Amino acid sequence: MAAKKMNAFYAQSGGVTAVINASACGVIETARKHKDKIGKVYAGRNGIIGALTEDLIDTSKESTKAVAGLRTTPSGAFGSCRFKLKSLEANKREYERLIEVFKAHNIGYFFYNGGGDSADTCYKVSQLSETLGYPVQAIHVPKTVDNDLPITDNCPGFGSVAKYIAVSTLEATFDVRSMCATSTKVFVLEVMGRHAGWIAAAGAMASTKDCELPIVVLFPEVLFDQKKFLAKVNGLVKKFGYCTVVVSEGCHYPDGKFLAEQGTRDAFGHAQLGGAAPVVANMVKDALGYKFHWGVADYLQRAARHIASKSDVDQAYAMGKAAVEFALKGHNSVMPTVERVSNAPYKWKVGMAPLSKVANVEKMMPKNFITADGFGITEKCRQYLAPLMKGEDYPSYKDGLPQYVTLKNVAVPKKLSKFDL
Amino acid sequence: MAAKKMNAFYAQSGGVTAVINASACGVIETARKHKDKIGKVYAGRNGIIGALTEDLIDTSKESTKAVAGLRTTPSGAFGSCRFKLKSLEANKREYERLIEVFKAHNIGYFFYNGGGDSADTCYKVSQLSETLGYPVQAIHVPKTVDNDLPITDNCPGFGSVAKYIAVSTLEATFDVRSMCATSTKVFVLEVMGRHAGWIAAAGAMASTKDCELPIVVLFPEVLFDQKKFLAKVNGLVKKFGYCTVVVSEGCHYPDGKFLAEQGTRDAFGHAQLGGAAPVVANMVKDALGYKFHWGVADYLQRAARHIASKSDVDQAYAMGKAAVEFALKGHNSVMPTVERVSNAPYKWKVGMAPLSKVANVEKMMPKNFITADGFGITEKCRQYLAPLMKGEDYPSYKDGLPQYVTLKNVAVPKKLSKFDL
Repeated sequence: MAAKKMNAFYAQSGGVTAVINASACGVIETARKHKDKIGKVYAGRNGIIGALTEDLIDTSKESTKAVAGLRTTPSGAFGSCRFKLKSLEANKREYERLIEVFKAHNIGYFFYNGGGDSADTCYKVSQLSETLGYPVQAIHVPKTVDNDLPITDNCPGFGSVAKYIAVSTLEATFDVRSMCATSTKVFVLEVMGRHAGWIAAAGAMASTKDCELPIVVLFPEVLFDQKKFLAKVNGLVKKFGYCTVVVSEGCHYPDGKFLAEQGTRDAFGHAQLGGAAPVVANMVKDALGYKFHWGVADYLQRAARHIASKSDVDQAYAMGKAAVEFALKGHNSVMPTVERVSNAPYKWKVGMAPLSKVANVEKMMPKNFITADGFGITEKCRQYLAPLMKGEDYPSYKDGLPQYVTLKNVAVPKKLSKFDL
Repeated sequence: MAAKKMNAFYAQSGGVTAVINASACGVIETARKHKDKIGKVYAGRNGIIGALTEDLIDTSKESTKAVAGLRTTPSGAFGSCRFKLKSLEANKREYERLIEVFKAHNIGYFFYNGGGDSADTCYKVSQLSETLGYPVQAIHVPKTVDNDLPITDNCPGFGSVAKYIAVSTLEATFDVRSMCATSTKVFVLEVMGRHAGWIAAAGAMASTKDCELPIVVLFPEVLFDQKKFLAKVNGLVKKFGYCTVVVSEGCHYPDGKFLAEQGTRDAFGHAQLGGAAPVVANMVKDALGYKFHWGVADYLQRAARHIASKSDVDQAYAMGKAAVEFALKGHNSVMPTVERVSNAPYKWKVGMAPLSKVANVEKMMPKNFITADGFGITEKCRQYLAPLMKGEDYPSYKDGLPQYVTLKNVAVPKKLSKFDL
């Protein structure tokens, strides 16, 4: 643990979520409660790039109200980035620069808020004491809509996307059900998840014991079998009159080719424009003749703070808070985790994982979460997902719009020379 | 006005909305309060088709709680349809069948819940007394996400879509703003509205005086000028670092060709699969090189009861209630309307329009609602839109999902022979 009072660095990394700012809120509010030990919290403008370019934001300039507002504001309030530090051997210059910036601004705590790649960066920073002799405590704050970090029961960011996709699938399926007699019979919704089908699985949550709905899920974990898929859709339309298909962007053929890659060319020979949803919709139309509609949720799903899950918001905040508390207890190279205690009632507590076991490990959906036919989720999966979507945590509104905060993001005066990325 | 106690017929028509069931709730609850004058409310299964095929639903079999639940349930609870009655001259057989069904089930009130085409059907039914000697009072209940009915200030269904698109545009734009330093710089969202740009206009509401955001709107009312559009996007990205484009599905070139029609062919020579959003996104990428993401809201926007506008829900209910009250006062061939009284505070009252002036008239956006450059909305438009999006009216939730109702939809025993559509 840092012997004297040191400043903290916090940065957001990778794709943003509806609740990553709730983690930022947890970090900043908790640090402010320990002013005897932690000086200022400096945020990296656009993630780790802000550290490398000495583009730091002084969060002490933000009011208590603005910081509290982060809890209900989606996206990354300080800017995020897609930038992975190479290994120390491959790019020692970047690590030396980090130390230079940390020294110049008296930074002894490093809080990095991101997914798998970011955990790797955080792990490398956590070793700077050993590798380059600079004492810094690096704590990773988990965040990813993909829900693919290991050890933790789930990742903040995922529960809210899951809720958004389940609610949207429910609503769109009710729509199709209304129209199917004379119009659309199949609705296709494309969702995120290039490697893991967690988000797609949430679509199946729209169907419940109280209200059974015909939903077909196409997972990246299940190799796409066109014949089997069309038979499934046809069977459901014959039985219910309609059906909804939730397709993961990562769904692919046995040869690894994504569904979205159809070799389509426009008049100028450019590669095709669409995603997996229009491909699947047209496949159904061509083979079965059913009228279709399709949607692509894209950023709408991961930014949808208006329908965030309360479990998710609470956990995102708790991860930020725990990161600061771990640091104050002298920990380095760890990540707070969500540990599930029970499903009914849903109880969870904060755990701790060593970064060495988190970095570069991807958690896929367990096989027993997917039904035997490959198109749905099992009861075990439902029990896992349900608590994560539970509870509402609405932002406040003014004139019909959520009151999301935009911070002042005042720059800390630079002390060093320019650094070229 | 029907001399003796008669039953009522109610049907939902055309594309459903987040609040059309709130109108159904208004009709049924109000009719139940006047059991001395109105017998049962029979709903058409799948709209007017239910009347023609004598497939009637006995709404008296639904509990008070289930009917109340319609107020917070999106989609069409009785099924809707896309089916327009031809003129009396062109298809007298259908009108005679309607009368046959009305007579068999003692129906003296006809409530038709739909948009422009439906108003035309309702108008024709309202003339049956004159044309074919059957006394029926036909009242149209306005509904359309397109907001294109004349006389009424706005259409129930639109306010909730507007809110959904404004909130989604806000959230996705915050997302792009976070990522633009190293990743996506332009986000494109495709919205409904083939003829009128009302829904697209709502996207621009995400930018406010308190929080200015770079949003470009592509209206169907403004002929698409690629050069001007690309210059606009480039200017905004240069100034803000990012921008969002909200494109109406109806946006088209001066020759009438829709943006979505790019002559794209797949490997089998089938016509292109995508919508306007991927076309616009790729156009930006090709000309300006910016990384993009795109989304297509499709049914998600019109089914999004979870983020419905309270103004919209209240008005949808009020239109259903007023329709019954108008009928009880002896009116025929009319439609209740929303009359705006004031903007600040927002006040409105129920008005009445003759169906002869509603049927087949399409209300486009006024020219002074669109900015001179054709890519935004004026202050006048903001003042019009803001009240329609105002207020939240959340459904109740259980285990993370909205508790939407599915009715029993018990069929009324048939009395007539089969009718082929």
